[in-house]
Amino acid sequence: MPLTASMEALIASLKHLPGVGPRTAERFAFYLLSQPASVSRELSQAILRIKETIGFCSLCYNLADEDRCTICRDPGRDKSIVCIVEDPRSIIALEKAGAYKGTYHVLLGALSPLDGITPKDLKIQQLKERIKSGVIKEIILATDSDLEGESTALYLTRELKQLAQSMKSAGAEGAPFHVTRLAAGLPMGSAIEYADQVTLGRALEGRREL
Amino acid sequence: MPLTASMEALIASLKHLPGVGPRTAERFAFYLLSQPASVSRELSQAILRIKETIGFCSLCYNLADEDRCTICRDPGRDKSIVCIVEDPRSIIALEKAGAYKGTYHVLLGALSPLDGITPKDLKIQQLKERIKSGVIKEIILATDSDLEGESTALYLTRELKQLAQSMKSAGAEGAPFHVTRLAAGLPMGSAIEYADQVTLGRALEGRREL
Repeated sequence: MPLTASMEALIASLKHLPGVGPRTAERFAFYLLSQPASVSRELSQAILRIKETIGFCSLCYNLADEDRCTICRDPGRDKSIVCIVEDPRSIIALEKAGAYKGTYHVLLGALSPLDGITPKDLKIQQLKERIKSGVIKEIILATDSDLEGESTALYLTRELKQLAQSMKSAGAEGAPFHVTRLAAGLPMGSAIEYADQVTLGRALEGRREL
Repeated sequence: MPLTASMEALIASLKHLPGVGPRTAERFAFYLLSQPASVSRELSQAILRIKETIGFCSLCYNLADEDRCTICRDPGRDKSIVCIVEDPRSIIALEKAGAYKGTYHVLLGALSPLDGITPKDLKIQQLKERIKSGVIKEIILATDSDLEGESTALYLTRELKQLAQSMKSAGAEGAPFHVTRLAAGLPMGSAIEYADQVTLGRALEGRREL
C-alpha cells in the first residue's frame, strides 16, 4: 500500500461510481487532495444531502425535495398535457430540449417480464387516478425506444384508450383525451447510409407531407 | 430546473472533478441517489478524511498520515536505494510494477523556468541532507521523460555528482554513491513503425548486448 489508508479508502469508494476504474478514481482522489478544504467539504455535504432531502413527487413521481416537484409546483406549466417517461433522467433530457411546457408522469421503470417488472410495479395505477381527476387533454408517451420502452408504450396505449372509453361512456369530465407517442425516425445529423433497418423502417412509416 | 436543488448542487460539485462533464456528473449523482445511504455516507466521509489526515512524509515527501509514510516505515524496504520521483502518483505506478524494493524521494514538482519553478521550490535540499546521512548507495532518477522531467534529471545528475565528489574528498561515510536513470526506449507492446523519433533515438542509444 504505497498510499495512506485514507487515500486508499477514498479511491475504493470512488471506484463504485459508474464507469470509474482505478486510474480515474486515483485521479479524482489526487484532485480532491490538491484542492482547498472547502471543495471537499462542499462535495461531501452535497453527497450526504441528496439522501436526506430527496423523495418522489406525490403527483408525478419525479424527484422532489418537497411534496410536489419543481415542475408540478410551477404555475406556468400546462397541467392538461402529461408526458409519460420511465425515469427522472428522461425529464432532464426533455427539459434541456426546451420544447415542452406541460407536466410529466414518471413510471419509475418499464415493463420487463424477464426482470419480473409487471404493470403493478410501475406508477400506472397512479397515472390512471390522475387522469380520472379530469384535467388532462393529452398524454404523450415518451418511454425509451428500446424493447421495454416500446412494450410499455403499447401496453399503456391499450389501457389508456380503454380508460378514455369508459370515462366517456360514464360522461366523465376530461374524456376523451388524446394519447400520442414521440416520433421515431432518423436522429438529426445522421447519415441514412449508417442508419439501422428498424430506424429506417420507422422513419418511412412516419414520413410527413411537406 | 427540472431537478431538486440538492441534486443540482451535487451535480455542480461533481462537475469540478477532472474530466467530468455535465452528463457524467448527472450519472454519478443518480447513481449515488439510487444506492443505500451507507454508500453516500462512506464516500462523503472518505472525501472529508483525506483533507484532515494527509500530510507529507517528513523524510521522503510521499503522502503520509503519520510523520513517516508507509514505505519509509516499512522495515522490509532497502533504505540504501532511493528512487527520485516528481509526484506521489509516480510512486503508485512504480509500486504497481512491483519490481522495486527500495525507498523514494518525492521532489513535489519538476524544474520549469517558464512556470517559475526553480530548484529551491523542489525538495532537492532535503534530498542532499538525506544523502549526507550516509546510508544511500544508489539514487535512481525516475522523473518523467518530458521536457521538465529530463531537465530536472540533468540538473540533479550534476548536483549529485558534485555532492558525491565533495563527500568523497571529505572522507564522508556513504560516498561514493551511484546515480542512475530509468531506461528510455520502446514501451512494451508497441510497434517500431509507430514509435516517435526521439523514443527510437533513445532506444538505439540505450541498446543492450544480448
